[in-house]
Amino acid sequence: MTLITLIEIMAILVGAFSGFIEARRKRMDLVGVFTVAFITAFGGGTLRDILLDRRPLFWVTHQEYAILIFVLALMAAPLIRTLRQIVSERLIVVADAVGLGLFSIAGVASALEAHMPIFIASMMGVITGIFGGVLRDIVCNEVPMVFRDGKPYAICAFIGSWMYLIMKKFGADPDLALWSSATVISGLRLLTWKFDMRMGRS
Amino acid sequence: MTLITLIEIMAILVGAFSGFIEARRKRMDLVGVFTVAFITAFGGGTLRDILLDRRPLFWVTHQEYAILIFVLALMAAPLIRTLRQIVSERLIVVADAVGLGLFSIAGVASALEAHMPIFIASMMGVITGIFGGVLRDIVCNEVPMVFRDGKPYAICAFIGSWMYLIMKKFGADPDLALWSSATVISGLRLLTWKFDMRMGRS
Amino acid sequence: MTLITLIEIMAILVGAFSGFIEARRKRMDLVGVFTVAFITAFGGGTLRDILLDRRPLFWVTHQEYAILIFVLALMAAPLIRTLRQIVSERLIVVADAVGLGLFSIAGVASALEAHMPIFIASMMGVITGIFGGVLRDIVCNEVPMVFRDGKPYAICAFIGSWMYLIMKKFGADPDLALWSSATVISGLRLLTWKFDMRMGRS
Repeated sequence: MTLITLIEIMAILVGAFSGFIEARRKRMDLVGVFTVAFITAFGGGTLRDILLDRRPLFWVTHQEYAILIFVLALMAAPLIRTLRQIVSERLIVVADAVGLGLFSIAGVASALEAHMPIFIASMMGVITGIFGGVLRDIVCNEVPMVFRDGKPYAICAFIGSWMYLIMKKFGADPDLALWSSATVISGLRLLTWKFDMRMGRS
Repeated sequence: MTLITLIEIMAILVGAFSGFIEARRKRMDLVGVFTVAFITAFGGGTLRDILLDRRPLFWVTHQEYAILIFVLALMAAPLIRTLRQIVSERLIVVADAVGLGLFSIAGVASALEAHMPIFIASMMGVITGIFGGVLRDIVCNEVPMVFRDGKPYAICAFIGSWMYLIMKKFGADPDLALWSSATVISGLRLLTWKFDMRMGRS
Repeated sequence: MTLITLIEIMAILVGAFSGFIEARRKRMDLVGVFTVAFITAFGGGTLRDILLDRRPLFWVTHQEYAILIFVLALMAAPLIRTLRQIVSERLIVVADAVGLGLFSIAGVASALEAHMPIFIASMMGVITGIFGGVLRDIVCNEVPMVFRDGKPYAICAFIGSWMYLIMKKFGADPDLALWSSATVISGLRLLTWKFDMRMGRS
């Protein structure tokens, strides 16, 4: 298993986990738990691919991820309390930040491949990074957290996406551009978490 | 008119009817009543076709169904109270179960035609069967009923979808596979309704 | 700059402005303000293009509009109160009515180009005209205003869309059909506003 597959699985698991917790808070049944976890993990990338008209979707060609979330949902009800005790807050935040960086840069890269103009490409990065959570909150009948808690998820994704776009523009090595931008996003997110930095509300 | 057209119309009418009732509960106007009924009847299949990138959509090539819901919405306001008295609870549950079976198997079959992997095909069956109601509840600003009431709609759709997939795998006659799986879904749904079986919540 | 570009920009600005106000009411942060404004301005056309499978999307080929909304969102927090005092209620209603007319007819025209049947084309007109606001309300966790306040937005869009379809059917000049139908929609909306006409609720 390569490093990128491992990180990918971690990012999906973190997305699914946040979906489990939200579904549980809403006292959903098994069907809700699976669906909400699935939407949280894959919603951002799916929305991006629909907007760009790219098919097949990621989770369609990799059905093993859908099956993984299905199995986890089956076990979630009894396990989730234990999991929350075992898995430290810190680990979740780190995995979440890594996922944000990876998903966002994957989104910008897809948009560039599809010849999107540059500002739209940066938007696709942010959409891929944050819309899983937005769709989760819409399904759970909440105002999306990322639009109102002032935590700079989207800002970090936006900055890193532009870094990637500028590096590509100036002919940087693709792998270097990808990894350094993703690292910047994750790093910024961790820094802003560490110092609890927030944007003001409107 | 063939039997399948008749059942199709019944399934759409049941979807639309459940949309009418929900829109009315939310005190919506004519525009809301039509839109919510339309979304309930066609939302599941439309979402599936967008995910699979199939066009034209079902209701686009059969505009007579859209017109039918439009005419019903125009008449709904005065009629709905009368309708609820004439139409027994039992008839609605039966029609709903028949619709669930039919829509779900139509969803799996479409996914197989589009060469989806097997687990994804079963998910498309469930999506087609239940997402009309999910989208209805999202538009009506509710946590989707099917995610929290523990009634095994999705489970029945899932079991029948797998039955269909397995029968196709072993080379069963396509018509037999379709009708027997749809019947199993409808039958399971009616049984679980009869005995009021529910899943636990998370 | 041609007249149509000017009107287009006005319509988008009005959509974005109504998104700003709603996002502010929900006390969203910068990310929410931008996203909700964007969805309100472009959501209707985007949904239509996804249903018709048309790409690239309008805002993808015209990234200048996305950038405009982004800059406005950056300035919105301090400016919005001032703006609401400068910009009279009357001006907003007029611009909103003009936008409704223009968006709706653009929607019908796109649907005809894509060879949609006639009733579906009229629905696409209404969807383009009103679904920006519907999606805004769903994201903001409200029952969509246009489904319950009885104000005849959708009805005006529907009437004008049919006028356009009939004029095209009888071979009217395309420009004449477009402008007269859009004017009828805007005019009807202004009349119904002037006399505060509403539909009954269900």
